[in-house]
Amino acid sequence: MSQIESKLAEMGYTLPAPPAPGGMYLPYRRHGSVLYLAGVICVKDGVMTHTGQVGDIQTVETGFEGAQICALNALSNIKAAIGDLDKVESFLYVGGYVNAVSGFAQSPQVINGASELFNTLYGDRGRHARAAVAVAGLPADSTVEIQVNVAVMD
Amino acid sequence: MSQIESKLAEMGYTLPAPPAPGGMYLPYRRHGSVLYLAGVICVKDGVMTHTGQVGDIQTVETGFEGAQICALNALSNIKAAIGDLDKVESFLYVGGYVNAVSGFAQSPQVINGASELFNTLYGDRGRHARAAVAVAGLPADSTVEIQVNVAVMD
Amino acid sequence: MSQIESKLAEMGYTLPAPPAPGGMYLPYRRHGSVLYLAGVICVKDGVMTHTGQVGDIQTVETGFEGAQICALNALSNIKAAIGDLDKVESFLYVGGYVNAVSGFAQSPQVINGASELFNTLYGDRGRHARAAVAVAGLPADSTVEIQVNVAVMD
Repeated sequence: MSQIESKLAEMGYTLPAPPAPGGMYLPYRRHGSVLYLAGVICVKDGVMTHTGQVGDIQTVETGFEGAQICALNALSNIKAAIGDLDKVESFLYVGGYVNAVSGFAQSPQVINGASELFNTLYGDRGRHARAAVAVAGLPADSTVEIQVNVAVMD
Repeated sequence: MSQIESKLAEMGYTLPAPPAPGGMYLPYRRHGSVLYLAGVICVKDGVMTHTGQVGDIQTVETGFEGAQICALNALSNIKAAIGDLDKVESFLYVGGYVNAVSGFAQSPQVINGASELFNTLYGDRGRHARAAVAVAGLPADSTVEIQVNVAVMD
Repeated sequence: MSQIESKLAEMGYTLPAPPAPGGMYLPYRRHGSVLYLAGVICVKDGVMTHTGQVGDIQTVETGFEGAQICALNALSNIKAAIGDLDKVESFLYVGGYVNAVSGFAQSPQVINGASELFNTLYGDRGRHARAAVAVAGLPADSTVEIQVNVAVMD
């Protein structure tokens, strides 16, 4: 087992199966050393884990948990793309989208659920630039979606 | 005529004129082999084709048509940038934005209108990573906007 | 003082201190010649300058001013990343997010506040591809957020 997967297990997480794309797109596309990942939502084994808007039926705390699920799905897609989570050189960018009521101002606190997981798992390599915004809606009514770009080793 | 333009004609589509930028930006910027395209909306010959929100005056079906218009505008900008649609090596990423009522959950089904067109036209080269979200509003009240990154041949 | 900073002073602007990240992320991440910057909001010296939604308590004009503040924060992060604003080869992409009421259709006119500043400051090097959308909410209730990618000189 790779070092990163061992650490993930120590942290108490299990890598889910790669989520099925919810439309006519690829889970990832590589160009040179940059891996562009598709947006991933709050789904596990084909079942949505967090749906509805923060500020309505979800909270910052449950949204944070939803962002963790998204992060695990991104990791699963990265493994599918490059075979080994240890081959990530660095996380470059995370685009974070929170399904929220109009005027919601705490998108960073929600998306931290994903960022913290990448940071803890990869250390400095896991740190990334980010934008976190609240949007009107997400696929399958997911509470959170993240879109990640990473640099991979040759 | 290039192979891709011939195929586009067979599919029953005509490449529109490149849309005029709706603000102080460029229709595209190239860096190395990556072409960053500006967001494109539902406009044809200077006239908006689809305005208003999905879930209000637009539907998933009309939004899908709007996404096709966006895709044609992206192709027109790609041709303007690199001279020949055959010189696209691969589509990397599509950011899809649907102008929709709060809580709209079917952004993927709308953005499929663009993704399907790229896939059909380019085959495997047209497949891409993607994020599709519902937003509160779009330029000129467009129903759909897409932002595309492609890799181009030297 | 660098040429670009001199020009910025001539234009009547002062470069702010780099804004403190509002979450568990980096202000920038470089990969090769591409610098990915984190989203920046309407904040100056730790105090929010523009909060609330356009179409409610903010207008296109005040949003334009807010976008200028965002642009200055992006420049401050670029300087922190590469040491000298003259070392920007070109602006590649600006993602513009406007905190606005549902149905807001003038996001380009707001984000022009940032684009115009980059264009005036850098000339052709400052021109960029862009997508500008209205979203349901932004961090700390900021009126505007921009996320910028630039190419840097070696």
